[in-house]
Amino acid sequence: MYENLEQMSHMLNNLHGILTKGEEHAKEHGLEHDALLEAKLYEDMHALTRQIQACTDTLKFAAGRLSGKTDAMPAFPDEEQTFEELHARLDKAIDYFATFSAEDFEGASERHITLPFAKTMYAMGDDYLYGFAIPNFYFHVTTAYAILRNQGVPVGKRDFIGGFKMQPIEG
Amino acid sequence: MYENLEQMSHMLNNLHGILTKGEEHAKEHGLEHDALLEAKLYEDMHALTRQIQACTDTLKFAAGRLSGKTDAMPAFPDEEQTFEELHARLDKAIDYFATFSAEDFEGASERHITLPFAKTMYAMGDDYLYGFAIPNFYFHVTTAYAILRNQGVPVGKRDFIGGFKMQPIEG
Repeated sequence: MYENLEQMSHMLNNLHGILTKGEEHAKEHGLEHDALLEAKLYEDMHALTRQIQACTDTLKFAAGRLSGKTDAMPAFPDEEQTFEELHARLDKAIDYFATFSAEDFEGASERHITLPFAKTMYAMGDDYLYGFAIPNFYFHVTTAYAILRNQGVPVGKRDFIGGFKMQPIEG
Repeated sequence: MYENLEQMSHMLNNLHGILTKGEEHAKEHGLEHDALLEAKLYEDMHALTRQIQACTDTLKFAAGRLSGKTDAMPAFPDEEQTFEELHARLDKAIDYFATFSAEDFEGASERHITLPFAKTMYAMGDDYLYGFAIPNFYFHVTTAYAILRNQGVPVGKRDFIGGFKMQPIEG
């Protein structure tokens, strides 16, 4: 379980680099920042800013709910209006997750998780994590990337995936 | 580990429904199927067909490599040209994954995984799964969804996430 949350935090870190490329692209092409921050893939979809808010929320809620520390979850008011503020939002989620360690999630697979959109129900921790939090998280991270790509920002799969640990085969 | 792979298989099942809505939309609007199958978010990105090929490949490779059964991985030639053939591709990956059980992945966290793009290196099973296979998988599933959404197909988050297990709170 912890490895999944840790990877989410890595993905938010990758979004720092992706947003920076967006900002550079806006400068180079003389675009208002809003042109990217408010860009969408379709008229009734959420814009870039909301995608960043949603994926940071998803990691916050997953860590808070699965550890049983919902009372200590920080508030993330959705007030970001600049690239700088979106970077700060990413950092808030990364920093919050860094306060946890693997031990905080012992027994979390069987924890009963309640959700604001289904108040009379609960999900087991594992069902919530795999069936909802992970797909929802990657949905918003990928859509943030896709919005910038759709607007012509030169980001690539390498920016999305980031690095992962490999080591030389000996012999 | 198995839960992550199982969820990938669920996501491919959700893509059946998403593709069906795409096909219905094409019929309703008198579009050639190719208009959707070859649609992209940006000129140098992959089209819908390739996104489906990529996410099915990712589950196949993750299951085959992590279980150590790479010799028995089926070939998925990239020849799909119709919605029907894309549904069949999804089923090939879902059916292949169904041949595994959780026991096949015992010890897989520490298995040495080699990848065709880095032949002198290996990744530990966990680093490959969390750092590469999962983000790559969700990247292509979400992009497939985003391409259809960008083309006006009326799919929603519910189609993407599908159902997850919740139960009534008693008392």
